[in-house]
Amino acid sequence: MANIEARLKELGIVLPKPANPLANYVPGVIAGDLLFISGQLPFDAQGKIAPGHVGKLGLDIFNEAGQEAARMCAINLLAQAKAALGSLSRIRRCVRLGGFVNAGPKFHALPAVMNGASDFMVAVLGPEKGRHTRTTVGVAELPMDAAVEIDAVFEIDPESHH
Amino acid sequence: MANIEARLKELGIVLPKPANPLANYVPGVIAGDLLFISGQLPFDAQGKIAPGHVGKLGLDIFNEAGQEAARMCAINLLAQAKAALGSLSRIRRCVRLGGFVNAGPKFHALPAVMNGASDFMVAVLGPEKGRHTRTTVGVAELPMDAAVEIDAVFEIDPESHH
Amino acid sequence: MANIEARLKELGIVLPKPANPLANYVPGVIAGDLLFISGQLPFDAQGKIAPGHVGKLGLDIFNEAGQEAARMCAINLLAQAKAALGSLSRIRRCVRLGGFVNAGPKFHALPAVMNGASDFMVAVLGPEKGRHTRTTVGVAELPMDAAVEIDAVFEIDPESHH
Repeated sequence: MANIEARLKELGIVLPKPANPLANYVPGVIAGDLLFISGQLPFDAQGKIAPGHVGKLGLDIFNEAGQEAARMCAINLLAQAKAALGSLSRIRRCVRLGGFVNAGPKFHALPAVMNGASDFMVAVLGPEKGRHTRTTVGVAELPMDAAVEIDAVFEIDPESHH
Repeated sequence: MANIEARLKELGIVLPKPANPLANYVPGVIAGDLLFISGQLPFDAQGKIAPGHVGKLGLDIFNEAGQEAARMCAINLLAQAKAALGSLSRIRRCVRLGGFVNAGPKFHALPAVMNGASDFMVAVLGPEKGRHTRTTVGVAELPMDAAVEIDAVFEIDPESHH
Repeated sequence: MANIEARLKELGIVLPKPANPLANYVPGVIAGDLLFISGQLPFDAQGKIAPGHVGKLGLDIFNEAGQEAARMCAINLLAQAKAALGSLSRIRRCVRLGGFVNAGPKFHALPAVMNGASDFMVAVLGPEKGRHTRTTVGVAELPMDAAVEIDAVFEIDPESHH
């Protein structure tokens, strides 16, 4: 079994301290052996969205920046999963990513943007646990004008010793 | 255990008789201990969408009306949950709300709109059962030009005596 | 119990050989008794999207073509379900369809478009297994400028003899 924490260290990734929502919702809910994570924005370790990750793809920012933003959403998804589970070793699999890209007119390279998140999940969790289903769409607006928002469902070990 | 029906009465909320979809789908499906509810529009008790809950946020209507529309979607989600379950006492928890806001150009106050639904869930179900994960995005168009559409997943007691 | 394969034959539908995504995600993931399927585009049996299923509803293409595109997404959902399960007889029920319509300005006939997918599910699986919850929204852009994208959750028999 791959050690997820070790893999994060190898990749030089420090999971940010996940912010708690300032409203009547929570970042993660466990229901049976599923963990649902709220839509995450590309906040950085300082809790800010870098100017390069704000705005519409194809209009304000372009493919690589979008991919980077998607990757940061995925890092935050994992940080929230860790907060909800206590330990990332309880993750059996990433089941689903829902990707919402802030898309300018005629921007159709949405899957390429979303690969930033998918590639990260596989890099960290390995292909067995990391490969997920996904749905990628281009939306009209996102909170804080973020370039990308992603939510997730993980399958977890509900009876864990951590 | 909070009595959800009593809380609804306290809040002066009468759940509307939920409308059945006029197509080949249903308002709610139970799978194991999860209840999925179809996307709900802000229909009022008369089965109409008030003119103030139609159109784009930031263009045709504004924050408070949007929040109110989101609250009405949440009322309808609960009405559909009751119809699917027989009794609201079978709800263990609201797991997830998926919020789609009909967003005009540069309208980014999407979370504030969605709070109308989240606050309602917590007011009725209490913080333990009511706090959920959520994903809020701004979409291009919604059925009937509604201001908001919200779907839900609840965790339920699958073996109930009602 | 309806024989799904026989019903497909009656309807003259040959499920296409489902394409594997060319990225770090998969078409289907089983978690317990749920099967999640990635967002499907209206690819035809040759793996192409017909010009009539490209573009915005209400602008480039119209209701019937949109409905047809939604139906093709649903055919691909079923093809992916078969690939993931080995046999369609393991499907207990279609739990949820998430419909994303590429919507031009003021195009609100989104449910009519989505009926193309819902009607197909009920035609093939029968009303008991085929009726699902659904969420239909109009999005700004879709991959490959497809007219419709749909994802799904099925309830399945996890312990199957196939």
